[in-house]
Amino acid sequence: MLVEKKWVELFNISDPLVLESGKSFSPLTVAYETLGHLSPKRDNVLLICHALTGDSHVAGKYSPDDKKPGWWDNMVGPGKTFDTNKYYIICSNIIGGCRGTTGPGSINPETGKEYALSFPVLTVEDMVRVQKKLLDHLGIERLLCVVGGSLGGMQALAWAVMYPETVRSAAVIASAAYTSAQAIAFNKVGRNAIMSDPGFENGNYYGKSVPEKGLSIARMIGHITYLSDESMRKKFSRNLQARDAKSFELSDDFAVESYLEYQGGAFVERFDANSYLYITKAMDYFDFPGKYGSLDAAVKNISAKMIVVSFSSDWLFPPYQSKEIVKALMRSQKDVSYCEIESSYGHDAFLLEVEKLSRIMESFLLTARTEE
Amino acid sequence: MLVEKKWVELFNISDPLVLESGKSFSPLTVAYETLGHLSPKRDNVLLICHALTGDSHVAGKYSPDDKKPGWWDNMVGPGKTFDTNKYYIICSNIIGGCRGTTGPGSINPETGKEYALSFPVLTVEDMVRVQKKLLDHLGIERLLCVVGGSLGGMQALAWAVMYPETVRSAAVIASAAYTSAQAIAFNKVGRNAIMSDPGFENGNYYGKSVPEKGLSIARMIGHITYLSDESMRKKFSRNLQARDAKSFELSDDFAVESYLEYQGGAFVERFDANSYLYITKAMDYFDFPGKYGSLDAAVKNISAKMIVVSFSSDWLFPPYQSKEIVKALMRSQKDVSYCEIESSYGHDAFLLEVEKLSRIMESFLLTARTEE
Repeated sequence: MLVEKKWVELFNISDPLVLESGKSFSPLTVAYETLGHLSPKRDNVLLICHALTGDSHVAGKYSPDDKKPGWWDNMVGPGKTFDTNKYYIICSNIIGGCRGTTGPGSINPETGKEYALSFPVLTVEDMVRVQKKLLDHLGIERLLCVVGGSLGGMQALAWAVMYPETVRSAAVIASAAYTSAQAIAFNKVGRNAIMSDPGFENGNYYGKSVPEKGLSIARMIGHITYLSDESMRKKFSRNLQARDAKSFELSDDFAVESYLEYQGGAFVERFDANSYLYITKAMDYFDFPGKYGSLDAAVKNISAKMIVVSFSSDWLFPPYQSKEIVKALMRSQKDVSYCEIESSYGHDAFLLEVEKLSRIMESFLLTARTEE
Repeated sequence: MLVEKKWVELFNISDPLVLESGKSFSPLTVAYETLGHLSPKRDNVLLICHALTGDSHVAGKYSPDDKKPGWWDNMVGPGKTFDTNKYYIICSNIIGGCRGTTGPGSINPETGKEYALSFPVLTVEDMVRVQKKLLDHLGIERLLCVVGGSLGGMQALAWAVMYPETVRSAAVIASAAYTSAQAIAFNKVGRNAIMSDPGFENGNYYGKSVPEKGLSIARMIGHITYLSDESMRKKFSRNLQARDAKSFELSDDFAVESYLEYQGGAFVERFDANSYLYITKAMDYFDFPGKYGSLDAAVKNISAKMIVVSFSSDWLFPPYQSKEIVKALMRSQKDVSYCEIESSYGHDAFLLEVEKLSRIMESFLLTARTEE
């Protein structure tokens, strides 16, 4: 079903944005989409935060010919969990991205060239600061709920911590209060692959080359971490791809290899390598226990009703990291629910376990709305 | 303590070796080392099989100035678990390797140039066939025990299946009867990184370049899979490397990143990229259930006393894969012991949990020796 919607909208911020690094940055364009209608009381706003490679196009199709709808179409739309008949939904592309919001591939007006590696290194908190500017621009003072999975969940948590007066409820899904050493390790190797590609040219590849092999390798590494041992066994087992017997050559034999190759290649078509560097670095920097001294200190000012959701086979942001958030919130007497969804899909479960996640989120939103 | 030992020995095979692929290969040089003394009855022979990046230098130092002893020195030597006062120990470099035994970096006598990618694609069974030729050459008809971890454990299992009349006992440590889709996926991405490196030159880089960035990336990916989330947390946490605060640059900030960078760089110094391709491919091809129709069928002819050892946090060759071997052996009424060692070290535990592994292996060897 098509969601009634407009083309992506753009909001320009000319005031300098002070980043976590201390640097000021301007000008800034934010690409966002809105779905549904703002209620007269302006109390039905959901802010959806996207993950590493997502964008502002959260649901629906721009035209019936579009191959795919927005990235969370199975959750967002009329009559769906994030019901556009009830809620006014906002989703914006993060700063540093490559899907409309200013990022390293944007033109620096001072030089007339792409920022490339002169773009400032960002944090998750910076992404949230930009979203706050967007809400101010839209005249929205309160969010019924801010929701996100993975990096989006980090943003949701950061919203609750940084703007307690704005956030009535927050859903932190398949996420964590800090990026683990193992997750940093995978991100580091992915960045290394990109920067080792001769097509990278120290980030100044625009209009010339694309570090496609490096970006493809980074994406393949990512994909392995989004699945699970079990889901890969179920999906691919040791099946050969389009052959009856081993090739006895060094080329790909197995279905799992072809899958990764395809995913890597498709990613290069749609994502900017420099954005991949900046966003993974922002994830690596995310560390609320480190920043505030402890997770308890970090959550101290939260006033939002919180829900934390993890998935049993997610080994990139394992359930124990979700439980750490929940325990800190409980120790601080906050209103928090926790749900670990049994799933074999690994980290990707947050996009795939629609039915289970819907049930949880629908009742959470209902309570959040009623309680005010 | 120095183990009494000679320099690496070489054995030349001129008869063609028929490989699993059906191809014949010759000539072949095998690099091996022996420790201890062969008993008059020739009944005290231990064959140790090395893992992906190991070699024939299993223990001791060649000279007191050597920086490091052989790779399993904490287990092999006078008075140690694999006691060179009791046992005659043989360890040979696998075919396809780069540490003395013929591999893709060896000179093809027909062309006078390195084989490079004209080297035949191998299997674990081929590695074992070459070791059998070595034993024949040494006049050894029976092995008291064949033991190995990881890829070495695959060889130990293959020995028990392929040469039941030769193997009195076998120890399969941190290993599996087949490589999983997830493990294939990691190997594929590593190979891809090597082959994408412009220094790779389709394998013909000898004397010219080294695909160092690609090989380093492959090694870094490998290293992540050898550790565990828990061991990385304990070892690195989110510690910064040689700095007090985040750099807000795209370069490495964290200790875990420096560790991987170091491991990647060190590996390039000692390992041939083409060997990495061939050996990981051989691992990917390893599949006893697939080859024999079922794991039960594969183990049917085993007459060796078997021990299977896994490590709780090993997610590259998880305990469930060891249990599959054990269950198949039990269903076939074979003599099998199983031990899952509690450890946070991940796959690397097979090289690090020396005390626990020693206790298990010493009693296993004692029984194996007594029972004959």
